[in-house]
Amino acid sequence: MKVSDLAGLIGASVDGNAEVEISGIGKIEDAGPGEITFLANPKYQKYFDTTKASAVIVSENFKSKRSDLTLLRAKDPYVAFVFALKTMIPPPEPLSAGVNPVAYISPKAVLGKDVRIGAFVCILDNARIADGVKISHSSVIGEDVEIGENSLIYPNVTVYQGCKIGKNVTIHSGTVIGSDGFGFAPQKDGTYEKIPQLGIVVIEDNVEIGSNCSIDRATLGETRICRGVKLDNLIQIAHNVVVGENTVIAAQSGIAGSSKIGKNCVVAGQVAIVGHLEIADNTTIAGKTGVSKSIKEPGKIFFGIPAKEMREARRIEGAMRMLPKIIEEFTELQHKIEKLTSKE
Amino acid sequence: MKVSDLAGLIGASVDGNAEVEISGIGKIEDAGPGEITFLANPKYQKYFDTTKASAVIVSENFKSKRSDLTLLRAKDPYVAFVFALKTMIPPPEPLSAGVNPVAYISPKAVLGKDVRIGAFVCILDNARIADGVKISHSSVIGEDVEIGENSLIYPNVTVYQGCKIGKNVTIHSGTVIGSDGFGFAPQKDGTYEKIPQLGIVVIEDNVEIGSNCSIDRATLGETRICRGVKLDNLIQIAHNVVVGENTVIAAQSGIAGSSKIGKNCVVAGQVAIVGHLEIADNTTIAGKTGVSKSIKEPGKIFFGIPAKEMREARRIEGAMRMLPKIIEEFTELQHKIEKLTSKE
Amino acid sequence: MKVSDLAGLIGASVDGNAEVEISGIGKIEDAGPGEITFLANPKYQKYFDTTKASAVIVSENFKSKRSDLTLLRAKDPYVAFVFALKTMIPPPEPLSAGVNPVAYISPKAVLGKDVRIGAFVCILDNARIADGVKISHSSVIGEDVEIGENSLIYPNVTVYQGCKIGKNVTIHSGTVIGSDGFGFAPQKDGTYEKIPQLGIVVIEDNVEIGSNCSIDRATLGETRICRGVKLDNLIQIAHNVVVGENTVIAAQSGIAGSSKIGKNCVVAGQVAIVGHLEIADNTTIAGKTGVSKSIKEPGKIFFGIPAKEMREARRIEGAMRMLPKIIEEFTELQHKIEKLTSKE
Repeated sequence: MKVSDLAGLIGASVDGNAEVEISGIGKIEDAGPGEITFLANPKYQKYFDTTKASAVIVSENFKSKRSDLTLLRAKDPYVAFVFALKTMIPPPEPLSAGVNPVAYISPKAVLGKDVRIGAFVCILDNARIADGVKISHSSVIGEDVEIGENSLIYPNVTVYQGCKIGKNVTIHSGTVIGSDGFGFAPQKDGTYEKIPQLGIVVIEDNVEIGSNCSIDRATLGETRICRGVKLDNLIQIAHNVVVGENTVIAAQSGIAGSSKIGKNCVVAGQVAIVGHLEIADNTTIAGKTGVSKSIKEPGKIFFGIPAKEMREARRIEGAMRMLPKIIEEFTELQHKIEKLTSKE
Repeated sequence: MKVSDLAGLIGASVDGNAEVEISGIGKIEDAGPGEITFLANPKYQKYFDTTKASAVIVSENFKSKRSDLTLLRAKDPYVAFVFALKTMIPPPEPLSAGVNPVAYISPKAVLGKDVRIGAFVCILDNARIADGVKISHSSVIGEDVEIGENSLIYPNVTVYQGCKIGKNVTIHSGTVIGSDGFGFAPQKDGTYEKIPQLGIVVIEDNVEIGSNCSIDRATLGETRICRGVKLDNLIQIAHNVVVGENTVIAAQSGIAGSSKIGKNCVVAGQVAIVGHLEIADNTTIAGKTGVSKSIKEPGKIFFGIPAKEMREARRIEGAMRMLPKIIEEFTELQHKIEKLTSKE
Repeated sequence: MKVSDLAGLIGASVDGNAEVEISGIGKIEDAGPGEITFLANPKYQKYFDTTKASAVIVSENFKSKRSDLTLLRAKDPYVAFVFALKTMIPPPEPLSAGVNPVAYISPKAVLGKDVRIGAFVCILDNARIADGVKISHSSVIGEDVEIGENSLIYPNVTVYQGCKIGKNVTIHSGTVIGSDGFGFAPQKDGTYEKIPQLGIVVIEDNVEIGSNCSIDRATLGETRICRGVKLDNLIQIAHNVVVGENTVIAAQSGIAGSSKIGKNCVVAGQVAIVGHLEIADNTTIAGKTGVSKSIKEPGKIFFGIPAKEMREARRIEGAMRMLPKIIEEFTELQHKIEKLTSKE
């Protein structure tokens, strides 16, 4: 592959001979002629000076003394290198071609072209699986479920009846889409009566969902994960929640019922957002925060239990660390005043 | 269906013509003659004045100017409407009738009448599945497990050897019942020796358990989820825990080993309760709270890490928000006193 | 079994007649001749005085007035009793012998001797399963996965392509090994491009992993769970994390990307450790703590969000509880000074 072609694929610009042929990939200390490598960490600078590689992925501002090397300048050289690696040595397909003979597929299900289905997969009545979809081993696709083109379901996933999954969606193992929302009406005798959960979950295009997440169906209507959302592992999305476009949520966070999260938000790990709130677009919520009120102004950063704007949270945290000493000084001051006033 | 019959089924009282026939259901802005609708949110009041529906579910104190409409008065009109919807348009059965031919059922297992078993279900030696039980696709029911009448197990659930599940229990996908308790004895060389986990899990009647929960078996004896308990998703119940009758626990909460939670408690999301505690009946624990001491007095509300009574937690939170300013004022005051005393 | 043989097996020392034959086990109030029992809780002392058991497991310093009884002195009598129980009444095997005929095993997979495989297990191309391994029902073992001797995989586990599992490892149900790390590069239009996750997960010997854990594969290289680590349930281990030898982590904790946890650490439940940190050996992290900075000195205890040394965290917590009262006193003092200074 010509280095200029690779640069195009990984989003880097070429500095030097763009015609060099690249046939392999290696670490900066080992790479030889015809190979590409990368330099991200300044600790490895010394290897740059002596590397025998033909091309090196470097940061955009990197200053080189070697005119013999072709440089590929990228915003994040490590990430660009990972893309280069994937291009040069494609990872194995997550599922081999065809429909495994030991899958259970309802005769009423509709399968598109080039669909791959693993062993012990269940696809139930009236499910509609679009072209190019891959459903890996032991996953269960409920009645009336729709899955859009080129989506990828890893093993041991469960999608309950009626849920809709868009195109180019990836769902990792153990995740459950469409389990009942947690709705129970308290009775006079202390017991609870289940409120039927009659809605569905809609997952739009280009969403990726990690492993062991739980996304509950709506009571009525939809729980909706909008286009481009990325969810990490072990995340709880309750009934009737909406997660806005391109929002990312890190592991072990939970969103309670009916809350609406805006677009392009960043929610860190182990965050809780209580029910029936609205979170503005471009909000950042730091790890372990508990959000108990709607956030109306977009673009702010929150932290704490309950959540405060980061600046205020930091000021309070700083004050708290001073507090034991302040209390000592205060007690001293009280005594001093005591003396002062008794003197009079 | 006569409106009076429907009212009985959804727990509402009829105000107006109880003989009206209802054959459908709709939104308040769309519903026509013969249909029932609901009004829960005051924003929709305007539609009430013009709706062509034959009956409307309203709150108990709702004041109507329309004598032509039959009103169904309910405590929570939205919930009553959901029940009406379920009655008028029953949701699909979670599992079709019969035993799927590609299930693996030990010849030593005992199955009751009208049992439904999905594809790729495993039912192992000496398991006893009572009448009317539904076990959905790819779930694994271990040796000697008992499941009581009319219980419903969703896909990809695992029940380990020897656990007992009562009647009318619902367990959602990905949940694991009876994995080993987390017990390891530290050795002198820094390694740990596993303490055998020889007990079981007992789940009493009318319990509902969400998706991706982990309920560990006891070291000896039982981990017990009492009658009527409702657990949300991604909940951790450790070995030898007892959760008392009709207690509800929201998503991502965890109860550590041997703690006993009382009856009719409400535990919000992402709560942690440390091991070997007792929590009194009717206790409410707010979200993200960390309970590190037993709670002896029933009926109180707790919040914070570590947990404090809500009133105290609020007072401290308020004080903390004032703290940065107080510290400033305090420093000023110190200077003032300094001057005052140096003057003398 | 001779009582001296049993004592050897459970790590207790014999005080009294070491030749007594033990044929059964019972509670201290019920046990009869030929049976062994235990006394751990002082509340049961009264039963000790009258028990008809032939031998009693007691603590190392227990003072007995009964010379007719053989005592087995153990550090933790309860734990010793559990081991005795397991020895006297072995629990059922977690999986019956042989390869279940309804498993799906690639002809390119390599299986060792005495391997047990449950129903609906998938073992994919080039997986290598060593002697004595047990893989229970509906688990999925990806391409090129290696599993070392005598490891035990419970039902409904997923191990993704290429991951390596050592000897004597136990993995409980619902756990996912090797799902993609959460890596996405933000694009100018607000969308994210997935960073390929090309590494693997390595789980060393003697590790136990609870149910419904998620352990992500590395971006490049490895996510590594070192020898002797014990993980509870619902734990998140992100890409490129290393958990050091003999570290134990309790339920619902999460370690973010690239962090390195030392050896022999104890991490309690619902802890979060942010990415790219190093945690020194022998560190203890209390429940619900959020660790946001590296911990360099070994052997310390941390608590709080953000984490502080336990002593400091306690001092601040104490001060916070005093704070509302201090603020009242402070306001009084301000008034007093006001008067004092205005008098002048």
